[in-house]
Amino acid sequence: MKRIAILGSTGSIGRNALEVVRSLGGDYRVTALSTHQNWELLAQQVADFRPSRVAIVDKESYRLLKRKVSTNSVEILAGEDSLEELASGEDVDFVLSAIVGAAALPATLAAIKEKKSLALANKEALVVAGEIVTSLASKMGVKLLPVDSEHSAIFQSLLAGQRSELRKVILTASGGPFREYPREALRDVTPEQALKHPTWQMGKKITIDSATLINKALEIIEAKWLFGLEAQQIDVVIHPQSIIHSMVEFQDGSVIAQMGLPDMKLPIQYALTYPQRRPAPVEPLSLPKLGGLTFFKPDMERFPALRLGYRAVSEGGTIPAVLNAANEVAVEAFLDRRIKLTDIVPITEGTMDRHKKCEHPSLGEILAADQWAREEARKNLPK
Amino acid sequence: MKRIAILGSTGSIGRNALEVVRSLGGDYRVTALSTHQNWELLAQQVADFRPSRVAIVDKESYRLLKRKVSTNSVEILAGEDSLEELASGEDVDFVLSAIVGAAALPATLAAIKEKKSLALANKEALVVAGEIVTSLASKMGVKLLPVDSEHSAIFQSLLAGQRSELRKVILTASGGPFREYPREALRDVTPEQALKHPTWQMGKKITIDSATLINKALEIIEAKWLFGLEAQQIDVVIHPQSIIHSMVEFQDGSVIAQMGLPDMKLPIQYALTYPQRRPAPVEPLSLPKLGGLTFFKPDMERFPALRLGYRAVSEGGTIPAVLNAANEVAVEAFLDRRIKLTDIVPITEGTMDRHKKCEHPSLGEILAADQWAREEARKNLPK
Repeated sequence: MKRIAILGSTGSIGRNALEVVRSLGGDYRVTALSTHQNWELLAQQVADFRPSRVAIVDKESYRLLKRKVSTNSVEILAGEDSLEELASGEDVDFVLSAIVGAAALPATLAAIKEKKSLALANKEALVVAGEIVTSLASKMGVKLLPVDSEHSAIFQSLLAGQRSELRKVILTASGGPFREYPREALRDVTPEQALKHPTWQMGKKITIDSATLINKALEIIEAKWLFGLEAQQIDVVIHPQSIIHSMVEFQDGSVIAQMGLPDMKLPIQYALTYPQRRPAPVEPLSLPKLGGLTFFKPDMERFPALRLGYRAVSEGGTIPAVLNAANEVAVEAFLDRRIKLTDIVPITEGTMDRHKKCEHPSLGEILAADQWAREEARKNLPK
Repeated sequence: MKRIAILGSTGSIGRNALEVVRSLGGDYRVTALSTHQNWELLAQQVADFRPSRVAIVDKESYRLLKRKVSTNSVEILAGEDSLEELASGEDVDFVLSAIVGAAALPATLAAIKEKKSLALANKEALVVAGEIVTSLASKMGVKLLPVDSEHSAIFQSLLAGQRSELRKVILTASGGPFREYPREALRDVTPEQALKHPTWQMGKKITIDSATLINKALEIIEAKWLFGLEAQQIDVVIHPQSIIHSMVEFQDGSVIAQMGLPDMKLPIQYALTYPQRRPAPVEPLSLPKLGGLTFFKPDMERFPALRLGYRAVSEGGTIPAVLNAANEVAVEAFLDRRIKLTDIVPITEGTMDRHKKCEHPSLGEILAADQWAREEARKNLPK
């Protein structure tokens, strides 16, 4: 029996994860759930999955949830710190971190300290604090299980050889909805257009990140930490159909790829059942039905975001945290119609340029860099 | 130090294998080589690789070789039985069986009996005597290492999961040079046209088998024995670029593929260095350079050979041996311009129809079925 905590159970990944747990049946049980403020859906999930504890970060939503759910059947925690408590709970074997943003970091570290199996759908914990997270995981003997479809694909493909035999990884990128837009047209893109992703159904922030390709920059940083890579060992290939989720190239020239229809239930379930594979509620892939797969070199001129990812991997220290924080501010400003889509990368890059990097930062130094970057990025938004 | 015997060192696979051994260097040494009759190339290989023993099947070529090569430096065996002796030699750890045809069978079994590591580039040993070969290998604890690019791809991809989690394998097929020919045009194909394969450089027999797709039928049978599969667990997909060498689909829906440019040195080296991977003398794959990969359902009407493969897997017994033998006769007749390309499958199928199948055949019964099928197929050739 695997007892599962899902941090961020009301988001896109969280909801998919609950579907996976339901389809897996007997051996998997949800014992803890959390949401930021979606108390109505959480109440429904409590009724459906009967966890022993839930956490809700927003205090006002906590009050609303308490009126709806009987505290006889479920313990309800509230506030920012509740996530750490949830993740390190005694009746939890496995934590799925599916929260967006750097807010996931304390709970991630708490789960590792308690030697929980840890599946990471949250990018930011690795992006901003990759060195701290991976060295603690290695010290505690905790294997980090990636849930991003790209990193899950690399993780699976790596099983066909030894880590020491790896030459490079090849991250695939759909290229987002504006893959074929000329640079000028990108300037006039509206939030509504940017929120329509061609192949993946995801949350707002990550969908905008996919449109700018900052998402791929974050994944480059993630890949560095998950697989211990140098910048030149990470390739990006545009693959609009999102069928090959990513690849590895071994030193003999053999390339191993993991493929499937774009469906997050596949990597979520793989993390849950690892090292086993169980029948999953996903449609099988038929390549003849698709007909063809295409591949392009990424256009670094139209999509300069990738350069930022490589730069963050090479420079290290607090630079990735600054990239992440400045981008978050810029994405919000774009969704608020205060800046253009094409302003996001320059604002982020400018903030990185002005940052005084701290090497091997402590958690405090990372959070300070994050804070500084947000303020600095905000200063550069139009009033 | 791995001491290697290459049976069939003057053929296409054998020559590639020698190139691989040369590039691997120090830890790999060729101690035994064989050829059917190409004594001139064998003499050259003896000078280059200094094996301790060689075998040459054809007696006349043996005399010519002996005049060229000093028997002080190398022991020379002659005749059919010399292959068995070579394969079971004391200074051999690893046998690469790269002979075409059922003639490889006795040496294959001899190598297994002596617990040599065994790499199979020869299809026929498994096709005609799969049950005998695999049960002896399992009894002796010998792992059979496939060298066909398709089966090597499946072997590698299977490392990403457990055998019990496998749903099916997907063999890719280039479709051969006549993939887009209408049925009528196939009738007028000359041996010269059929010998031009679009993606792979191979011997004559296998190139014709690729044009009729009988090669894929033989690979379906091979896959059955190598991976313990039922007919419905083996799919064939036409993939003209021959970049994805084959795939496996696990029960969670995840598809793992092995890819590379079409170059036999890759699967040959993988078998040699297994379970390790070493740098190989092959050009790296760049998907953006290729642009696209395409996939089609095989057209069973224009290429009825695939049906024969599935039929042989389902019927079992001596039927696969009959398929193989009748096809060999028909291919020879086509190369001699006695029949048309489109006659090969009907002649083979007719021979299968008229065969009285023997279940769980002994080696003697297999050889008798092989003999019977050759005579039966010959009877049905035009005078």
